[in-house]
Amino acid sequence: MARAVTLFTGQWADLSFETICQKAKSFGYDGVELACWGDHFDVDQCLKDKGYAKKRWEVLSDNGLKCFAISNHLVGQAVCDLIDERHKAILPPDVWGNGEPEGVRKRAAKKMIDTAKACRKFIDAAPQKTGFPAVVNGFTGSSIWHSIYAFPPTDQKYWNKGFEDFARRWTPILNEFDKLNVNFALEVHPTEIAFDTASAQRAVEAVKGHKRFGFNYDPSHLGYQGVDYVKFIRTFGNRIYHVHMKDVWWGHGDGSVGVFGGHVTFADPRRYWDFRSLGHGDINFEEIIVALNDVGYQGPLSVEWEDSRMDREHGATEAAAFVKSKDFKPSAIAFDAQFDR
Amino acid sequence: MARAVTLFTGQWADLSFETICQKAKSFGYDGVELACWGDHFDVDQCLKDKGYAKKRWEVLSDNGLKCFAISNHLVGQAVCDLIDERHKAILPPDVWGNGEPEGVRKRAAKKMIDTAKACRKFIDAAPQKTGFPAVVNGFTGSSIWHSIYAFPPTDQKYWNKGFEDFARRWTPILNEFDKLNVNFALEVHPTEIAFDTASAQRAVEAVKGHKRFGFNYDPSHLGYQGVDYVKFIRTFGNRIYHVHMKDVWWGHGDGSVGVFGGHVTFADPRRYWDFRSLGHGDINFEEIIVALNDVGYQGPLSVEWEDSRMDREHGATEAAAFVKSKDFKPSAIAFDAQFDR
Amino acid sequence: MARAVTLFTGQWADLSFETICQKAKSFGYDGVELACWGDHFDVDQCLKDKGYAKKRWEVLSDNGLKCFAISNHLVGQAVCDLIDERHKAILPPDVWGNGEPEGVRKRAAKKMIDTAKACRKFIDAAPQKTGFPAVVNGFTGSSIWHSIYAFPPTDQKYWNKGFEDFARRWTPILNEFDKLNVNFALEVHPTEIAFDTASAQRAVEAVKGHKRFGFNYDPSHLGYQGVDYVKFIRTFGNRIYHVHMKDVWWGHGDGSVGVFGGHVTFADPRRYWDFRSLGHGDINFEEIIVALNDVGYQGPLSVEWEDSRMDREHGATEAAAFVKSKDFKPSAIAFDAQFDR
Amino acid sequence: MARAVTLFTGQWADLSFETICQKAKSFGYDGVELACWGDHFDVDQCLKDKGYAKKRWEVLSDNGLKCFAISNHLVGQAVCDLIDERHKAILPPDVWGNGEPEGVRKRAAKKMIDTAKACRKFIDAAPQKTGFPAVVNGFTGSSIWHSIYAFPPTDQKYWNKGFEDFARRWTPILNEFDKLNVNFALEVHPTEIAFDTASAQRAVEAVKGHKRFGFNYDPSHLGYQGVDYVKFIRTFGNRIYHVHMKDVWWGHGDGSVGVFGGHVTFADPRRYWDFRSLGHGDINFEEIIVALNDVGYQGPLSVEWEDSRMDREHGATEAAAFVKSKDFKPSAIAFDAQFDR
Amino acid sequence: MARAVTLFTGQWADLSFETICQKAKSFGYDGVELACWGDHFDVDQCLKDKGYAKKRWEVLSDNGLKCFAISNHLVGQAVCDLIDERHKAILPPDVWGNGEPEGVRKRAAKKMIDTAKACRKFIDAAPQKTGFPAVVNGFTGSSIWHSIYAFPPTDQKYWNKGFEDFARRWTPILNEFDKLNVNFALEVHPTEIAFDTASAQRAVEAVKGHKRFGFNYDPSHLGYQGVDYVKFIRTFGNRIYHVHMKDVWWGHGDGSVGVFGGHVTFADPRRYWDFRSLGHGDINFEEIIVALNDVGYQGPLSVEWEDSRMDREHGATEAAAFVKSKDFKPSAIAFDAQFDR
Amino acid sequence: MARAVTLFTGQWADLSFETICQKAKSFGYDGVELACWGDHFDVDQCLKDKGYAKKRWEVLSDNGLKCFAISNHLVGQAVCDLIDERHKAILPPDVWGNGEPEGVRKRAAKKMIDTAKACRKFIDAAPQKTGFPAVVNGFTGSSIWHSIYAFPPTDQKYWNKGFEDFARRWTPILNEFDKLNVNFALEVHPTEIAFDTASAQRAVEAVKGHKRFGFNYDPSHLGYQGVDYVKFIRTFGNRIYHVHMKDVWWGHGDGSVGVFGGHVTFADPRRYWDFRSLGHGDINFEEIIVALNDVGYQGPLSVEWEDSRMDREHGATEAAAFVKSKDFKPSAIAFDAQFDR
Repeated sequence: MARAVTLFTGQWADLSFETICQKAKSFGYDGVELACWGDHFDVDQCLKDKGYAKKRWEVLSDNGLKCFAISNHLVGQAVCDLIDERHKAILPPDVWGNGEPEGVRKRAAKKMIDTAKACRKFIDAAPQKTGFPAVVNGFTGSSIWHSIYAFPPTDQKYWNKGFEDFARRWTPILNEFDKLNVNFALEVHPTEIAFDTASAQRAVEAVKGHKRFGFNYDPSHLGYQGVDYVKFIRTFGNRIYHVHMKDVWWGHGDGSVGVFGGHVTFADPRRYWDFRSLGHGDINFEEIIVALNDVGYQGPLSVEWEDSRMDREHGATEAAAFVKSKDFKPSAIAFDAQFDR
Repeated sequence: MARAVTLFTGQWADLSFETICQKAKSFGYDGVELACWGDHFDVDQCLKDKGYAKKRWEVLSDNGLKCFAISNHLVGQAVCDLIDERHKAILPPDVWGNGEPEGVRKRAAKKMIDTAKACRKFIDAAPQKTGFPAVVNGFTGSSIWHSIYAFPPTDQKYWNKGFEDFARRWTPILNEFDKLNVNFALEVHPTEIAFDTASAQRAVEAVKGHKRFGFNYDPSHLGYQGVDYVKFIRTFGNRIYHVHMKDVWWGHGDGSVGVFGGHVTFADPRRYWDFRSLGHGDINFEEIIVALNDVGYQGPLSVEWEDSRMDREHGATEAAAFVKSKDFKPSAIAFDAQFDR
Repeated sequence: MARAVTLFTGQWADLSFETICQKAKSFGYDGVELACWGDHFDVDQCLKDKGYAKKRWEVLSDNGLKCFAISNHLVGQAVCDLIDERHKAILPPDVWGNGEPEGVRKRAAKKMIDTAKACRKFIDAAPQKTGFPAVVNGFTGSSIWHSIYAFPPTDQKYWNKGFEDFARRWTPILNEFDKLNVNFALEVHPTEIAFDTASAQRAVEAVKGHKRFGFNYDPSHLGYQGVDYVKFIRTFGNRIYHVHMKDVWWGHGDGSVGVFGGHVTFADPRRYWDFRSLGHGDINFEEIIVALNDVGYQGPLSVEWEDSRMDREHGATEAAAFVKSKDFKPSAIAFDAQFDR
Repeated sequence: MARAVTLFTGQWADLSFETICQKAKSFGYDGVELACWGDHFDVDQCLKDKGYAKKRWEVLSDNGLKCFAISNHLVGQAVCDLIDERHKAILPPDVWGNGEPEGVRKRAAKKMIDTAKACRKFIDAAPQKTGFPAVVNGFTGSSIWHSIYAFPPTDQKYWNKGFEDFARRWTPILNEFDKLNVNFALEVHPTEIAFDTASAQRAVEAVKGHKRFGFNYDPSHLGYQGVDYVKFIRTFGNRIYHVHMKDVWWGHGDGSVGVFGGHVTFADPRRYWDFRSLGHGDINFEEIIVALNDVGYQGPLSVEWEDSRMDREHGATEAAAFVKSKDFKPSAIAFDAQFDR
Repeated sequence: MARAVTLFTGQWADLSFETICQKAKSFGYDGVELACWGDHFDVDQCLKDKGYAKKRWEVLSDNGLKCFAISNHLVGQAVCDLIDERHKAILPPDVWGNGEPEGVRKRAAKKMIDTAKACRKFIDAAPQKTGFPAVVNGFTGSSIWHSIYAFPPTDQKYWNKGFEDFARRWTPILNEFDKLNVNFALEVHPTEIAFDTASAQRAVEAVKGHKRFGFNYDPSHLGYQGVDYVKFIRTFGNRIYHVHMKDVWWGHGDGSVGVFGGHVTFADPRRYWDFRSLGHGDINFEEIIVALNDVGYQGPLSVEWEDSRMDREHGATEAAAFVKSKDFKPSAIAFDAQFDR
Repeated sequence: MARAVTLFTGQWADLSFETICQKAKSFGYDGVELACWGDHFDVDQCLKDKGYAKKRWEVLSDNGLKCFAISNHLVGQAVCDLIDERHKAILPPDVWGNGEPEGVRKRAAKKMIDTAKACRKFIDAAPQKTGFPAVVNGFTGSSIWHSIYAFPPTDQKYWNKGFEDFARRWTPILNEFDKLNVNFALEVHPTEIAFDTASAQRAVEAVKGHKRFGFNYDPSHLGYQGVDYVKFIRTFGNRIYHVHMKDVWWGHGDGSVGVFGGHVTFADPRRYWDFRSLGHGDINFEEIIVALNDVGYQGPLSVEWEDSRMDREHGATEAAAFVKSKDFKPSAIAFDAQFDR
């Protein structure tokens, strides 16, 4: 048997935990990756309520589902971001508070530590051990994303400040993760401190190669940019802490919108790129499976399903089948050995 | 004879006006497009000093150079931007003032009106009329550039506010341009209110199709994004008020940096794209000349030379020759007419 | 559930109506598109014989099949064509008559009106209403196809005469269709008045945008020509009255035959293009489904199966499955909505 | 020295013979290929007037020009064509006569024989022998061009009749060419009996490999069709009697018009393909020169200049230089020979 | 029903004959192609032991398997090769003997004749006749493979000697095959006398078109070289005596290794090409099936499964399904026939 | 001024030293790279005859030519090769001797040391110092080239022996080079110990990173293999001791011959690849100049001209002009510096 195929519940937060568990099973998944929003996984309750973790596992087990990771992208985003009105909609009220930027950032940092604690509690309550290390997936935000296009002229001093800010805010968080024996997996993504391989390497250096800082590999954010998303796997080998399976297409549209998005909404027919249901986009999953096998990744393949053009239940179902058809176990035998007499 | 080929002096502001005029001639140019920085064209002096415009023309004529446009990108940038420390380096001290953002924006707006006045005075002082309308090239800045990647989730309401801000700040400026019979030509470019065809169309709508709002067409900012830069010409036909010839390559690098630039410096070998001397990049100038002929553009082809990899004098020389080899006059005859007996 | 998948019976006219109905069901189809040749749908009998329509429906229902459209390409072809000996083989004897061209064209026009009448009668006799408007698919012929390559030199005056001829002959037919509340769907195709998007636009203009004149969209006739067959859907949105699913490959052969076909027979290995069973060609059906969803097309996807290289029963079976795997329902939810907390 | 570069005068028939000779020289050509229309080469006068040929050569010599071939495409076209109103504009009045189709065809055939006679007389009057055989370039017309798209269904019997018609009409003409020791070089071209490699092979077979039937090779009519225009040279090696250098681009336009031309005029921006000045299109002349060297072609490279987008004098000048830069002499030495010690 | 799909047992020689038969059935195969190594098919025993052939068939029949061919690549390789230490590992001890090169080559030649005899005996013992001719697949070796890159300078004289050596050694073997009514099918492959189409043609000529010399067509050895592997089928039509289905990818790696392999091991991530499980590589099997149908090949499609990256049982199972999904029967009907009324 | 452009005289060994010097100058070269065969540079004479070096320089200076390197590929080839009859033709008689392989290899090794001595003497005699280190270009041969395709199965042990053999034979030679302060530049090339980037890295490791072991970079041997020839420069930066400018095309032919060459002669129209005159092939010299600038290479660009299809004097002339048009000096200024006011 190859790897477990899980469904990330972040795009299903309008459904209750019980409902999405039943649906995930019926779509064909082996497990779920739980979002810390909607009612799927409540960090505070898990810390406060002794029975919470166990009850989550009961529902999961009732549906025959595994779980390897929890994800708190929305709170993580606020840790380094220049906060604006858009953050209010994605943050828990106690993190947003009065919305004063520095306060928001500090409360977000604290909540990420809480997330690690809750994760540890949850994983410890699992009915069976998987051998896969506990992991919190998430975002980091960035204080320098607005300057990606270097005009007004932007020098390395300016950008260094952004990476220093990141290191200053996240090193204490990572230290707490370490105490809890939990990995943090950054989903490399536009608007984060790392959004391609080069910035990911720089982020690793900024936190001095902290052993708890790794990646939730997701090719969909890299491919349309022109980043070699397979080389990313080979570059970071042992820091691939979790994997998202998500597809994207690019080179589409009518030529009036480019990679920067033209301030138009997803699924607008003019767009150059869009997220697509797995198998409908341009990501080469064959190459990804080969590379994951080469670096020895043995964790789940977690479907983050997002396609503004398709009925989501239709899509999530075909996506589970798609990933299972693509994944395969590596060979244990060298090719010539069996050819010899 | 085909179109005049001019050199934009913005990248040569370390040289004096006299020096760059001599050099432009020796490189093979027919004229220059004057930058409003360095000492090439001083807006305030032109307004104050009666003889300024005439003296500029004397130097130009002594070098056998034409001039069709002046350019004030740096000040225009500040009109809509969220001002930060990087703007200080590119603004005249009287526009920067104390650096308080709204004050900077207002002073920048006023300076753009002054630029139009100076342009009018300068063009009126020309020894010969060219028939080409007076034009100020420039940037607009944007209050929403930081949100191009729509996360935290960004809706059209958020973006609309940016276009309204642009309309509110620029309509009065354009009205003054109209009184002066001067066109404003926005160089569609990342960090501006318009950076592709779709946002350019939205900008035109925001200022209600103001007749003084057009474009300084420059393919180098569009091609690497994936925008159809030839279709841009056909879409805006009679709003192409000026043309930059500038080349760019893309699809380069080692796969670790994508279109968003990875916070690395120009000419870093890892980069996906870079500006290149004309003929060294991927822009198809053949198609551009065909489209400019189709829409009837008769103004100058102005070389904005920028290539961090090449000696600039070598490059500017080959660029002048390159543009002349690419440009051609349209046919006056239909193909079959001369075939008939 | 997505759209109904039907089989066009035109390529199975050697089989009886009953046989093709049984086979269509066994191949996996939801319905059929009936050809007005062979014994599948007899226009004259339907008009004369009161019970004919009802009996057709009984056979269809017995086989669990739906029907949305009837098709009379062969007679439609003769309405505008320069008639030659090849038409005799495809026309009913009463339309061919003595073969005198103008007489043939007039009788063909009359028969197309009869087809609309029969279609109305047939659709009215349906056991259940589908909500999909009654439609007759077909060809128009063209008096100017022979001049596509403009030599001897051909001017727009010459071609205009062809479009005027089309309008003169078809407007009265379309008026009758309107009275009967039946749409005419031209399959845009070489040898017809419209064979690409530009000529289709000109044909629409020729009949002054007649509301009964629309298209039986079929990508296989457009792709190998180099026509953007997806843009066709977006251009004509609400005039897409019916859809054929048919595949084609191009860029094949040994280089000795080009798009014009070299006077060689289909499936000759030297050919540049050939019709292929669905999924064996170069048509991008993913893009087509996306565009059909975008324009709101809700009718059947009708397989016109044609592949000179493959056993047709094998092919028709895999084609039904192929179309079902490609079709999907659009999303009812915006992508970010469910991501918000 | 490599091959002579000549200018075909067919597109310059609005200019007098003397004028085009002066211009051809000033554009940089070594010679001309004379069209039998305008006043460039008058077949009847050459036959009637003893001094005509000699006087032509005097003008040529005064301008330092060579001449290797005369061309009568317009009359040749009428030999097999289904005659319609468009032929009247391109035929001499004595060939058109009353326009009755069969009469036109017969008079055209006779005129082609006269053309061979005039060619022989002209070549014999040359001040110097070139060693290159006398050649008349031209078209053949076709009675089956209208049926290239095989609908109504068209079988090989139908097409065979077209080739038989061609053989019946042209064999007597070719026999006369043979008596006169003149080659006929068909320009393979849409609307002719041969328009790709396969139909050219069939045409050769139809005239039983007549030694006077060969080709005026012109890649511009083959490339956009998808025909391997380099393989054409290798296929017919010793039947390449003359060569046209003409460029074409394809894959252009806005996707609404395909290879069949959409009944739109040349240079319409929607078009998929158009003739272009040499070096502005997609023909790979490098490969052509290599293949012409391989088959030992030693005649002229004759520029047929046609670009509806460009001033023709600008274009003809750059075309002469372009061809000279592309042509090169083959090696006389094997590569390794000089490497050995 | 289309063709039988068999599994070549050469890569499973570590398993016993009984085991691989059971597995082949469970993977979904219709039959096996037996390797003459491991214990799958023992040439000597078959010749010595009367009941051997019959017992093999019993095991095959018990597992519902067919068999069309036996394969002796390893011994064939030694017939023409420059023998070195690597051959020892792949040759039966009685062929290797003392390892003196010429002796090895002669014993290998004799063993190939024995293989034909054993094949005849085995096929004659089959419980049912298949109509497919008896065939031994194999290699030939080559005395000139080391000189493929022609340095030190290598002329045709040098290479001719290699083909003469091949003819001298193999003609007697082929004559014995002829007496036994068995075909020899060379798998065209690097290190053999034929490794592309040109060398295969030369090999056929070397043995004067011997009717027993044909090919075991395998696209995986041709595609990554840049050989047109579909044209190979059309070139040799009736000499395609057997077919291997095997996939390969190319254009991979990190650019540090090219087609020559860089002395690195299979599946090294730096490699340009590698064998892959069917459907994971770049071979276009659609085109292959079309061509095999065109030349009338009716034998088995035999999967040679080799992918150093994948669990072989997973791979062999998906490969059987893959081939069955790709194969199809040709049409018995011409496309237009059924369209006529 | 950019780099010196020299002509490698190896392909002109049929001409005398004086003649090739005159020709090189007339073709437009700045200097020559002297071959140690023909009479261009005689290693033994240079060592024996005191005045030899000085007299060479006199001829060079009389023709205004520089010289940076001498080349002894032919002797170097024999150091590691499995010697066969083909070596006799390329070796000096005193190296070939009786042709016994090990003796040939040892004498070749000794001659390479002599070449370094002669090179030192020659460079010391130069009228002016260039600052560029003395360099001998050459080949190494290889004892394992015959096994590039790993069949019979070839493991790393087998290949390691080849690299060990190389290290054993070349380390003493390199040590002598070091004493003489001369670099050895291996032209990475099929049949050598290094023929791509991976094998070049392994060769460097085999000689323990010997500082005298570097490369004569030549893209023509890498491109057609699929090796990233630009990355090669970045990989070995400071070991690029000399540079050959040589072009090659690939993806040509008729599909019957692949990269392995099919045992057909250069310039055979069936070939997949061939060496071509600069600018006629597929090598991207723009990227090469950029990379050479990035790594700081300041030596000559030496044209090794080889094109079996072209007159060599025509070709060498256009090649000199081509290289000069491609080479350019890097920028001394950062792009934004001059943009700032």
